[in-house]
Amino acid sequence: MPSNQQIVLDNRPQGEASVSNFKLVTADTPALQDGQVLVHHHYLSLDPYMRGRMNDSKSYAAPQPLGQPMIGGTAGEVVESCHPKFAVGDKVVGMGGWQQYSVVDASVVGALRKVDTTHVPLSDYLGAVGMPGVTAWYGLVKICEPKAGETLVVTAASGAVGSAFGALAKARGCRVVGIAGGKDKCDYVVNDLGFDACIDYKQHSDGKALHVALKAACPNGIDGYFENVGGWILDVVLAQMNAFGRIAVCGMIAGYDGKPQPLAAPALILMSRLKVQGFIVSEHMEVWPEALGELGTLVGTGKFRPRESVAQGIEAAPEAFLGLLKGRNFGKQVVKLV
Amino acid sequence: MPSNQQIVLDNRPQGEASVSNFKLVTADTPALQDGQVLVHHHYLSLDPYMRGRMNDSKSYAAPQPLGQPMIGGTAGEVVESCHPKFAVGDKVVGMGGWQQYSVVDASVVGALRKVDTTHVPLSDYLGAVGMPGVTAWYGLVKICEPKAGETLVVTAASGAVGSAFGALAKARGCRVVGIAGGKDKCDYVVNDLGFDACIDYKQHSDGKALHVALKAACPNGIDGYFENVGGWILDVVLAQMNAFGRIAVCGMIAGYDGKPQPLAAPALILMSRLKVQGFIVSEHMEVWPEALGELGTLVGTGKFRPRESVAQGIEAAPEAFLGLLKGRNFGKQVVKLV
Repeated sequence: MPSNQQIVLDNRPQGEASVSNFKLVTADTPALQDGQVLVHHHYLSLDPYMRGRMNDSKSYAAPQPLGQPMIGGTAGEVVESCHPKFAVGDKVVGMGGWQQYSVVDASVVGALRKVDTTHVPLSDYLGAVGMPGVTAWYGLVKICEPKAGETLVVTAASGAVGSAFGALAKARGCRVVGIAGGKDKCDYVVNDLGFDACIDYKQHSDGKALHVALKAACPNGIDGYFENVGGWILDVVLAQMNAFGRIAVCGMIAGYDGKPQPLAAPALILMSRLKVQGFIVSEHMEVWPEALGELGTLVGTGKFRPRESVAQGIEAAPEAFLGLLKGRNFGKQVVKLV
Repeated sequence: MPSNQQIVLDNRPQGEASVSNFKLVTADTPALQDGQVLVHHHYLSLDPYMRGRMNDSKSYAAPQPLGQPMIGGTAGEVVESCHPKFAVGDKVVGMGGWQQYSVVDASVVGALRKVDTTHVPLSDYLGAVGMPGVTAWYGLVKICEPKAGETLVVTAASGAVGSAFGALAKARGCRVVGIAGGKDKCDYVVNDLGFDACIDYKQHSDGKALHVALKAACPNGIDGYFENVGGWILDVVLAQMNAFGRIAVCGMIAGYDGKPQPLAAPALILMSRLKVQGFIVSEHMEVWPEALGELGTLVGTGKFRPRESVAQGIEAAPEAFLGLLKGRNFGKQVVKLV
């Protein structure tokens, strides 16, 4: 039995999260029972939703229990199996959490999924061809419902969700405008991801300046918006939505530290006859096969080359996660554990 | 040619609207040309949307031109006709505006509609069996999409739209809770309209008190909300929406005087996976026949007895309209012109 390093939630944040909320511990991996599989994690996924789980407040999901390994998606390899459908050496993705190994009841539907790494790198199954990719797909296809020629905007455009949103929207013939923080990210969004434009919000520190830049990038207004951040950027975008525009609300990262971020002018929802809809991709499992199929093809054929920020070693996970919340990552944030 | 008293918009409000924004003038009615009909208005409809038209700001509709009769729905009688489908004595509804007579090009689709007053009083075609009724129907059926047993909430519950919303929702087996201003209105909403409960917001002057009262009236949370007012009441309702709740945004009367009313916690849209959708009923003419059919049956069979506030005489229209914006009306506000 290998020993298993874990990052557990030690205490809950008061306001901003910090490394002192986490603790590195070492546990044994228990002996397998019938139907179980031991997975050695190669990659751990870091995602903004984890910040919400750290709070003990009412939300759409149960809070992360104290003293337990943080929740999280993982990609790895089967190293021991008591389940007939999984063999040693299989590449698999699951929700193994912030630890080196996990024991999985492989019979539970959706607990463990075998993946093919011939054309798609293993870690992309945590990003572009995983939960973030499907998140982008759902918001785009099911809420923004774009038509060719329409203008779509996405925040955190260089991130795992934003970049997939852009790739999927370009494939549908839309004009896609990103919003991201910093020149490097914006250059990447336009030059590598193929967005039509990208606005560096850090160059526009107030709403008026961002308004002008957004207007220049969206001369025909905005038909669909994918919301990853909330706060003042949402106010600016809302004012430029076209009649009958659609807003997919996926993240409100700006409000995760406990300061509610008001919306300045909700009357625009009426005046522009907007649809504003929140969603959580794990509640729409029925779309995953179709979405993963499209995303896998985009990545496998090289049409979409997602970028990663890779932290090395389980002990690096807390710092990398806090960086993600501040936008310090560039592309999908993973932790490499091997 | 009868002389025609009109109320025109004389100047635009700075902040709150006042009677000095309007002017009573007298005009001649022009001679009819081929295809035209002269309508003598018996009733003028007063509706909150008119306040928005008084501003010169970007909105979904063109501003009301200065010096012209205020826009408005009218119900009356044909007194002269140069159109083969309309005869003297026909009862008709149209958009005749704030004046005693109008000359209508009866060939324009939707300009003039003959109505049957055998079972439905003429003025109800401006309320329960007219635009306000269809507004309630659209928000309920197309946006709130209620299932029997669900809990629905509507503000301005004793008004033309709110009362129709309640009647339509009760017919679908829902629990319906109204919010209205004053004991008389709340008593009427429960005792006459058949709502399950009604909360007098004037008895709950802060959000916390209203929260408690709403929670008591909606023990299973809120599945659908019809928004007529905006402002702090929306904040209170939003916090009690169930997962996958739907909010139809029809009015933001609280913000019409130019003070934008922020939404305190838009992150709830994500946390509760809500759909929030604004709409204007005149953009959905395809539903009118079905909606008017259902509403006409409810009123014609006496299952829904809408209430009216009746002001007498064209000169009373401005004062009655300002009262409507303050909630001084009780039920559908009309002006009787004959």
